[in-house]
Amino acid sequence: MSVILSEIRPGAYFDSVILMQMQKSLLELPGVLDVGVVMGTEANKSILEQSGLLSSETKTAKSDDLIVAIKAQDREIGKRAISQVENLSKRASSTVANEYVANSLKTAARMRPDAKFVLVSVPGIYAAEIVHEALELGKHVILYSDNVSIEEEIDLKQRASQKGLMMMGADCGTVMINGVGLGFANRVRPGKIGLIGASGTGLQSIMTHIHNLGGGVSHAIGTGGRDLQMDVGAITTIQGLNLLSRDPGTKVIVMVSKPPSPEVTSRLLSYIRRIGKPAVLYYIGYAAPGRKFAGTRFAGSLRDAALSAIKLVDEESDTQIPETIDGNLRGIFSGGTLAYEATLRLQATLNPLYSNVPVQSAQPLPEDFSGVGHTIVDLGSDEFTVGRLHPMIDNDLRVRYIKKEALDPNVGVLLLDVVLGYGAHPDPASELAPAIEYAIRNSVGDLEVVAIVLGTEDDPQDVERQIVKLNDAGALVFRSTSEAADYISVRMAPKAQVLGKQVSLESLQPPTSIINVGLESFYNSLIYQGAKAIQINWKPPAGGDQKLMAILKRMKTN
Amino acid sequence: MSVILSEIRPGAYFDSVILMQMQKSLLELPGVLDVGVVMGTEANKSILEQSGLLSSETKTAKSDDLIVAIKAQDREIGKRAISQVENLSKRASSTVANEYVANSLKTAARMRPDAKFVLVSVPGIYAAEIVHEALELGKHVILYSDNVSIEEEIDLKQRASQKGLMMMGADCGTVMINGVGLGFANRVRPGKIGLIGASGTGLQSIMTHIHNLGGGVSHAIGTGGRDLQMDVGAITTIQGLNLLSRDPGTKVIVMVSKPPSPEVTSRLLSYIRRIGKPAVLYYIGYAAPGRKFAGTRFAGSLRDAALSAIKLVDEESDTQIPETIDGNLRGIFSGGTLAYEATLRLQATLNPLYSNVPVQSAQPLPEDFSGVGHTIVDLGSDEFTVGRLHPMIDNDLRVRYIKKEALDPNVGVLLLDVVLGYGAHPDPASELAPAIEYAIRNSVGDLEVVAIVLGTEDDPQDVERQIVKLNDAGALVFRSTSEAADYISVRMAPKAQVLGKQVSLESLQPPTSIINVGLESFYNSLIYQGAKAIQINWKPPAGGDQKLMAILKRMKTN
Repeated sequence: MSVILSEIRPGAYFDSVILMQMQKSLLELPGVLDVGVVMGTEANKSILEQSGLLSSETKTAKSDDLIVAIKAQDREIGKRAISQVENLSKRASSTVANEYVANSLKTAARMRPDAKFVLVSVPGIYAAEIVHEALELGKHVILYSDNVSIEEEIDLKQRASQKGLMMMGADCGTVMINGVGLGFANRVRPGKIGLIGASGTGLQSIMTHIHNLGGGVSHAIGTGGRDLQMDVGAITTIQGLNLLSRDPGTKVIVMVSKPPSPEVTSRLLSYIRRIGKPAVLYYIGYAAPGRKFAGTRFAGSLRDAALSAIKLVDEESDTQIPETIDGNLRGIFSGGTLAYEATLRLQATLNPLYSNVPVQSAQPLPEDFSGVGHTIVDLGSDEFTVGRLHPMIDNDLRVRYIKKEALDPNVGVLLLDVVLGYGAHPDPASELAPAIEYAIRNSVGDLEVVAIVLGTEDDPQDVERQIVKLNDAGALVFRSTSEAADYISVRMAPKAQVLGKQVSLESLQPPTSIINVGLESFYNSLIYQGAKAIQINWKPPAGGDQKLMAILKRMKTN
Repeated sequence: MSVILSEIRPGAYFDSVILMQMQKSLLELPGVLDVGVVMGTEANKSILEQSGLLSSETKTAKSDDLIVAIKAQDREIGKRAISQVENLSKRASSTVANEYVANSLKTAARMRPDAKFVLVSVPGIYAAEIVHEALELGKHVILYSDNVSIEEEIDLKQRASQKGLMMMGADCGTVMINGVGLGFANRVRPGKIGLIGASGTGLQSIMTHIHNLGGGVSHAIGTGGRDLQMDVGAITTIQGLNLLSRDPGTKVIVMVSKPPSPEVTSRLLSYIRRIGKPAVLYYIGYAAPGRKFAGTRFAGSLRDAALSAIKLVDEESDTQIPETIDGNLRGIFSGGTLAYEATLRLQATLNPLYSNVPVQSAQPLPEDFSGVGHTIVDLGSDEFTVGRLHPMIDNDLRVRYIKKEALDPNVGVLLLDVVLGYGAHPDPASELAPAIEYAIRNSVGDLEVVAIVLGTEDDPQDVERQIVKLNDAGALVFRSTSEAADYISVRMAPKAQVLGKQVSLESLQPPTSIINVGLESFYNSLIYQGAKAIQINWKPPAGGDQKLMAILKRMKTN
């Protein structure tokens, strides 16, 4: 036999740590079988229900109500337990010595003038105001709190970047500055690998693997999970990349996140290509344009990212920044899969890329695509082969396209494939080379022609002679799509810009000194690590009563 | 000065080779500046327009009308050119000696009883009937033609598989049997790598790279670009995999295609896992679940696929087929990115996989997900952390989930992560291990518990002691998500089936003898390669008049 007793405490704010402690203390009472002490959100009510702790009364609780539910051997025991809630909530008190506690950010900033960072872990609805105040005081912010709106995040990040400050978050679980972990962080060897991540346990995993594989970490900058969304625009990520690119202690940069939006991806890849340090990217679930592409390594797993970075620390790497070719790309293919692989790879940096074999983010080719931007057309596709030989046999259509595209003043690079072998044209270069010569001679600007030649030395067309003919006509010849696409991607990647004011390198200098607002366990962990820290004695405005809070806020603004 | 003259020849059928030859001959006439001789499809009319060859009259041409358009120095020259069209179309004639030409498939099959393959390259609208006849005669078909409907393709493939025959296509550009290339194929060294591809130039590229890198090819089976669509169901691909898995001359299998549908992917990966030979997959643009996953290698480019395959030929590889675990997977995570990487990897073989951090094909987790199938839940996600500590600090919620899932009789594997480090719970195993013990003791079937432990030996929790506690409770411990997911994927991959009748190994035995219906250049190429071949003297029914064809067809069926 057992009974369930429960009550709702409307608008009562308790720190999550206190709630956990209350739950544990209540469970220890004799005759108490199960306990739930949670805020009345839908997710929490569903969890209570699964544990058989939700009553018809507590079902109606709102997300800022506290639910106390107790399963006890009998009604008496249950009642006694509930009556202790008040007491227990008072017993849970601060463990931080008074001299390290401040009552406001301003006081804390005076007490620790060397503090460059504020770590915020109060509930999401209270976070924006604290972050705002921290930025006004000239501090970088690590915003651990989740449940912060995207509009607030964008606003805070833009303000921060104007001041040369970083707003890492919201929902930023992990940061490491000079070996000091903020939030969740593993203890790892110091070293030459700097990390940037829109994913907390992603950073933790890669740092841990780096350590376990014998490497070390300089700094790890968390950005919050939404930084790479189109509307946030990777503000913190680009700040972090820029900062680590200037940091003399960082030799290799690793970045981890879920796949960014296509526009943000192309901006980031272009930016990373020009930071002058080797980089490893792991966009989890992204179909990378190759393992090494446009000077950047793409990892296949969290562990693989660590492994690649460690290898790069010991390598002399080529980080030369090449001259850029302006204008558009026009790819004119006969081989469908060559067109498809080229589209896949080139769309990573050339965005938008239009194609009649569109892949992922590539845009479908408009019917009349003259002057439309970067395009790749596969002339072997069904719509072009009704009553017409395949372009691998009949070059007429390709020759027409090559000549036509050359006259478009917006074109910077012409890309074509030449597929040899049985069944194909007996001497394609004899027809394509004159068209290439014509294109280069008649183009308005500097036109570069790139050709992919697919063939073996045993093919009937004599691959070496084909290549000589194409070279003589002025084409640069590659033997695989991936190499050709890599070359074009490096040369055509747009120049990327950093927004706002540059973050000063001094931010990364010791001592690492932090103001902590929220979870005391984070303060304790900072002290345990030997960092300098101060705890803010934070209480929610109006005692957590959200109605009262709204009234107070309105009074302030009026 | 120049003039454009053009005419329409309604319902006139000409072989594409003849059209190309006519166009070239007309262009060679003195005073002729440009020529278009094409069928009146939309794509062709748009190309004529771009070349300034489309008139208001020819704009109205239909797709089975022939357009002849001539740009000449003056009207006289233009008229003279057009008057020669009739003659030119007759001059273009067969180059195949009479004794190698048959008038019907039946005759050809009698003349060359050793022919196992029929290569079909007639225009798409005529193809299905020929393929059907070839299958009735017990021949494998390579259907080069495009513009064949998907319904026809499905029907023909199903018929073929019932007879133990392969219907490779439609739009199958490349096949190689015993060194003989059918359609487009490069000349490559014989060797131990067998290929299967839904993409012609994909096969050509990989074969060429294999040769250029020093390797060799046993056979290459093209399937047509649509074979991996859900409605076709990979009929030819699975036949080919099965055939190559039994072929003693093939040691390593390479597969290339665009990414299949998620259902087809999981079916294929499960099938490939159990063929007992090492395999390299390149699904172009697919975010692979790792570079090596569940015993299969995923390549990053066409060239990389060749490189991997060559390495595997010389390696002693582990192709043991493991015992399967039945039941569902339930992942209960605290680290968001660990949950995300696990979802990404496991969804490749466990389909559908439900997750509250869904990635690509993974399905969003239903609100009440009890007994829903394979699930992964990230308890650190926003909806679970309102007024509640992160599950990396507070284990209560995870303990509840572990105990609850263990009682579900459909569960085969429980997967959880244990994240150590600063900020996290000081001894998570002390709370999780008893829950794991409870789960194993109380589960209905054989429950396996897999744990991912993320930590360094310097972390405050002592990683080795954490692992010992988890092991003692009965959990199998991995140190990275990728290794844990790989293990689970191999053990839980569903058994895959082959449809229809098995293709006999004899199909791959010499002599390679082919009946060719369509492009004579393919016949010539077969003879050049030393293969045995016979050409069908094919003409479209009713002289290519589609109205008349429809009438004839109706008469036949009545």
